[in-house]
Amino acid sequence: MQLKDVGEFNFIRQIQDNTIYNPNTVVYGIGDDCAIYKAEQNTEQLISTDTMVEGVHFSFHYMMPYDVGYRLMTANLSDVAAMGGIPRQIVLSVAVPDHVDTVILDEIYRGIKDQCMRYQLNILGGDTVRTEGPMVWTVTIIGEVPKGTAVMRSGAKVGDVVGVTNYVGYAATGLGALSYNLVGYDMTKVGHQRPEPQIELGQKLRRLGIHSMNDISDGLGSELNEIAVASNVSIVFEEQAIPLHEETFALAKHLQTNPVDYALYGGEDFQLVFTAPKSLLSELEKLSGITLIGEVLSGPPRVQMVTPDKTIKTVEAKGYNHFHEG
Amino acid sequence: MQLKDVGEFNFIRQIQDNTIYNPNTVVYGIGDDCAIYKAEQNTEQLISTDTMVEGVHFSFHYMMPYDVGYRLMTANLSDVAAMGGIPRQIVLSVAVPDHVDTVILDEIYRGIKDQCMRYQLNILGGDTVRTEGPMVWTVTIIGEVPKGTAVMRSGAKVGDVVGVTNYVGYAATGLGALSYNLVGYDMTKVGHQRPEPQIELGQKLRRLGIHSMNDISDGLGSELNEIAVASNVSIVFEEQAIPLHEETFALAKHLQTNPVDYALYGGEDFQLVFTAPKSLLSELEKLSGITLIGEVLSGPPRVQMVTPDKTIKTVEAKGYNHFHEG
Repeated sequence: MQLKDVGEFNFIRQIQDNTIYNPNTVVYGIGDDCAIYKAEQNTEQLISTDTMVEGVHFSFHYMMPYDVGYRLMTANLSDVAAMGGIPRQIVLSVAVPDHVDTVILDEIYRGIKDQCMRYQLNILGGDTVRTEGPMVWTVTIIGEVPKGTAVMRSGAKVGDVVGVTNYVGYAATGLGALSYNLVGYDMTKVGHQRPEPQIELGQKLRRLGIHSMNDISDGLGSELNEIAVASNVSIVFEEQAIPLHEETFALAKHLQTNPVDYALYGGEDFQLVFTAPKSLLSELEKLSGITLIGEVLSGPPRVQMVTPDKTIKTVEAKGYNHFHEG
Repeated sequence: MQLKDVGEFNFIRQIQDNTIYNPNTVVYGIGDDCAIYKAEQNTEQLISTDTMVEGVHFSFHYMMPYDVGYRLMTANLSDVAAMGGIPRQIVLSVAVPDHVDTVILDEIYRGIKDQCMRYQLNILGGDTVRTEGPMVWTVTIIGEVPKGTAVMRSGAKVGDVVGVTNYVGYAATGLGALSYNLVGYDMTKVGHQRPEPQIELGQKLRRLGIHSMNDISDGLGSELNEIAVASNVSIVFEEQAIPLHEETFALAKHLQTNPVDYALYGGEDFQLVFTAPKSLLSELEKLSGITLIGEVLSGPPRVQMVTPDKTIKTVEAKGYNHFHEG
């Protein structure tokens, strides 16, 4: 059935069920001109927005509609994780062409709602409108942190250690395996299709008192450069220290590529990279899923990698740009 | 110059200037994974989102790009006004085709920023992405009200008076004059192109303690029906009491249409309709721009209009639906 047959109002009514997963923070959900919610005392509010366009940010060739919704939420949740925040509320809007089958929309919403349930987020608003172009999904997320504790990119200090969570280059490995139509690579394929935001580790790191943090959405190279520039420091890390999954090594061998490139330039891992004072080393060691890869030095804002043969390479900020730079 | 020549990052850098119009509420604006802002103590937070698609919600035939941005903001601000709220923050995203001239984007942003400046809103986030389809703009707005004071649609009580702000059918008159290419109608043409949200009146009405409120975005008929259904009451109003502008009468005469239809079924006035206990009558009379048009009765949730010859007509909720109902 197509959206034009169901009607916008009827469709919106359907998706309004099951939108509140943490009623403590809500006064009134969807249904009036605005939703009403509570901010906890002695907190600061976090806000971020992300837009995904069919054919640009996702494709139904490699992803099921459910995964599109799931990953849209992960991208937003990851922005809150990168501040050490607690996710609270979202509003979402979709512009959709008349001919889209409502099963596809239902599946995307199912992916969104499953992530909302898992991370106890409420859906407090939505707008469903018609377009003649490809689908455009926008999610705005609200989170919170205790007052004064949000972890920013700009807080790195000379002498800090640099750490990352879990595996890096994981999603890019899965995407590579999918695009070459390779058998196997089951872990990293799921890593590409249903990446998880590091909400819990982000909060743990914030509570420890780390100095700076960023989520890895555009590759480790790009994110480390953002910290270096925002904090006006130099960052040096060891190539061999980067935690790569065995499937990354296998794919790199198969395609005769450099495994570390998946970590440096591959996008959408949604892991965290952070810097912390050395005084936290013993606390960091107690957390699982943390690998230390380098340190923060004084010097011009740049990122350098020490290779196994002790050569120093400058790592550029090759971020993914949805427009062609001139 | 087209967006693909400037590059997304450079364009975003340009529009990041002048985004903070009320620094008291902001900890950190655009530039990290999330922006950080403060919610005032003893308040509740309001949130709403609106999406406008080129060719569906706006057209450059009748509106300058500046006006598109201006009206996008008005639509969002009006949702906060309808709760009696104080607007605080927005995030916005745009999906835009490669070939769009950046002058058009600059002009749309200028319209957005002028409204942000006027109503002391901060722009705390933005996403600019590419699409192959028409432009899609999404704004999410955050507002606040003192705890427990948000004015909802569901609060109308039997015995309340029904009031509206300023003129109704005003924007529809301007749109009609523009689409028939008529000379004159200067006031209502501007009313269509640059409507204003009723932020100040909304807050004044909330402080008086009115019972229910809605903004008029889909015509007075639709909005009154929403209050009647949400509050489970009957609403009766006098056709002759509706405040119509002289240009509405002139256009109706010229086109041989019924002037009240512009108010009942014309959209995007962004005025307010509310119900209030009779005990507030003397306070309401002191406000300028308020007209009382009817009252709230017990009975099935419906809206009825008394015509000048004392006939009673049921007013249907003919809301604008961006999809064709089946």
